[in-house]
Amino acid sequence: MFPPITEDGLTQSAVLILDQTLLPMQARQVRLTTLEQAAQAIRTMQVRGAPLIGVTAAYGVALGLTESADHSDASLDRIVNTLAQTRPTAVNLHWALARIRRALSLLPAQDRRAAAWREARAIAAEDVATNAAIGRIGLPLLSEIAQRKGSVQVMTHCNAGWLATAGHGTALSPIYAAHETGIAVHVWVSETRPRNQGLLTAWELEQSGVPHTLLADNAAGLLMMQGKVDMVIVGADRIAANGDTANKVGTYLKALAARAQGVPFYVAAPRSTIDFNCPDGAAIPIEERSATELGYGEAVGLGQSITNPAFDITPTTLIDGILTETGLFAANELKLPAP
Amino acid sequence: MFPPITEDGLTQSAVLILDQTLLPMQARQVRLTTLEQAAQAIRTMQVRGAPLIGVTAAYGVALGLTESADHSDASLDRIVNTLAQTRPTAVNLHWALARIRRALSLLPAQDRRAAAWREARAIAAEDVATNAAIGRIGLPLLSEIAQRKGSVQVMTHCNAGWLATAGHGTALSPIYAAHETGIAVHVWVSETRPRNQGLLTAWELEQSGVPHTLLADNAAGLLMMQGKVDMVIVGADRIAANGDTANKVGTYLKALAARAQGVPFYVAAPRSTIDFNCPDGAAIPIEERSATELGYGEAVGLGQSITNPAFDITPTTLIDGILTETGLFAANELKLPAP
Repeated sequence: MFPPITEDGLTQSAVLILDQTLLPMQARQVRLTTLEQAAQAIRTMQVRGAPLIGVTAAYGVALGLTESADHSDASLDRIVNTLAQTRPTAVNLHWALARIRRALSLLPAQDRRAAAWREARAIAAEDVATNAAIGRIGLPLLSEIAQRKGSVQVMTHCNAGWLATAGHGTALSPIYAAHETGIAVHVWVSETRPRNQGLLTAWELEQSGVPHTLLADNAAGLLMMQGKVDMVIVGADRIAANGDTANKVGTYLKALAARAQGVPFYVAAPRSTIDFNCPDGAAIPIEERSATELGYGEAVGLGQSITNPAFDITPTTLIDGILTETGLFAANELKLPAP
Repeated sequence: MFPPITEDGLTQSAVLILDQTLLPMQARQVRLTTLEQAAQAIRTMQVRGAPLIGVTAAYGVALGLTESADHSDASLDRIVNTLAQTRPTAVNLHWALARIRRALSLLPAQDRRAAAWREARAIAAEDVATNAAIGRIGLPLLSEIAQRKGSVQVMTHCNAGWLATAGHGTALSPIYAAHETGIAVHVWVSETRPRNQGLLTAWELEQSGVPHTLLADNAAGLLMMQGKVDMVIVGADRIAANGDTANKVGTYLKALAARAQGVPFYVAAPRSTIDFNCPDGAAIPIEERSATELGYGEAVGLGQSITNPAFDITPTTLIDGILTETGLFAANELKLPAP
């Protein structure tokens, strides 16, 4: 299977992405050679998932410096700003851009192009390692339940699997780790309207042979009430300093149901998702996306008003733990050093 | 506009229904002349909404007695049983069938056909009057907010409007009453996956000129967190004696968000929706409908497991009031006489 993002050969001139808007119907790679193509891939969600957006943005800088002969500070700023404006909520985008910009700005202009490719590759490789660590650290949460009950039922939302990252995934990484160690794990996959990223999750779980069941987002509360869910694990697009978490819209409703039904609710994300400059969830901008994403243009006629926020905020008080590459933290103790 | 159900002329031989599976793309009437057609219309959700299901079932008995020359007790039982097995959750179906069966069983066989048509017509007319009363009784809840804030923002789920009843609707009845008295009311319409009955709500609100905005079910919690919702009103398919309420799947998640955000949450339903034989929500059967309703057959491939419960249970503790034709009750005092 194609990886979500990879360099096209060794020429350092193009990047291949898996076009996620075509999945699961079709697995097709798209070749990016320009800054604008990279920005457009992020905007249109050909690549999506906070970590993968960060990696793609880093490669976008490399493409921008490959496309243009001007490698001045001004040119670098223009490239970074173009990418920074693609999507407002995911903080990994800004983290990756700040990191690559800082690294390049220390170098003379003629060294920046090669360094951008090196740095983008490093960000991708570190994401793979980070997510593997999240899997290792999250595994005991699942194995403890499996030892007690014989199997473990995990609910997730949206797609925070390998498709959303450079590898392994975040929320799905402990699930893959459990599956690989022979634990009987079953995943409840919420379809995640309006973009139906649950289909991506179902598709990638199927590739790996992990048993799963798809459901309408509306059914999540009932399944928890019926005792069919042992834990919820979701990813994150931005975690505020106090632990409030922005993730795909609908996450908050699952967190409310989990708390009401005594089901532990975990967020899994690399530490680069934590925005210590953001005091709480109220300070996180929520992206409003096009009404056309609901797909009702023709059905409801012209003049129908539609709202389509892409994310919501889950308050820190509803989160039982945040799984990162350095450990499992209480949502209100993110500033602590690694345990 | 076609009414949701009406007799076809004065011949007492056929009923016309608005085929709701075609809305809002197409408003088309379907003519029912047999018991099996009536049962099939309920099963396939050409008619849906607990009160309308009850009315259709009553007319289904009339059609069964028109179609067959056998009007014996055994024949009546067969007809009633066929209709009773169409859908398990909505109690109005069983209420209407029990009522018409009781009325007919007191009559000699030769009088039963005409009486069935009379009784079905009476059930429909009473539903219209009942829903008008729900609107009148619910109106002060909206006008009080409008007086304080200048306008009122109501969120609903699924369709509990005139399309779901013989007239006026249940949850939408107070909204129509408010709109008619000149109150500035705006409705947040949740799309209600997997069958998207929110489109029916948007469509009927548009017919009446009531401002409204469509949203993915996932966005409901965020909108409440953002203070954009003054109250939630939903319908009900069955209310247990303790106030636990079965309604379209996803209702429970809205009730949780409403409670967390201090938004009052009301259920509007005729008293025939209350099942005093049912002690609590755990005793209400939840209909599991076909996986094909999610519409992903082709997209996810064969072998994907899908769950599709049609209803969920909102605990009585999350309900701020139950609006009926005899008054507004606390959810735990349904047995009280009318206030």
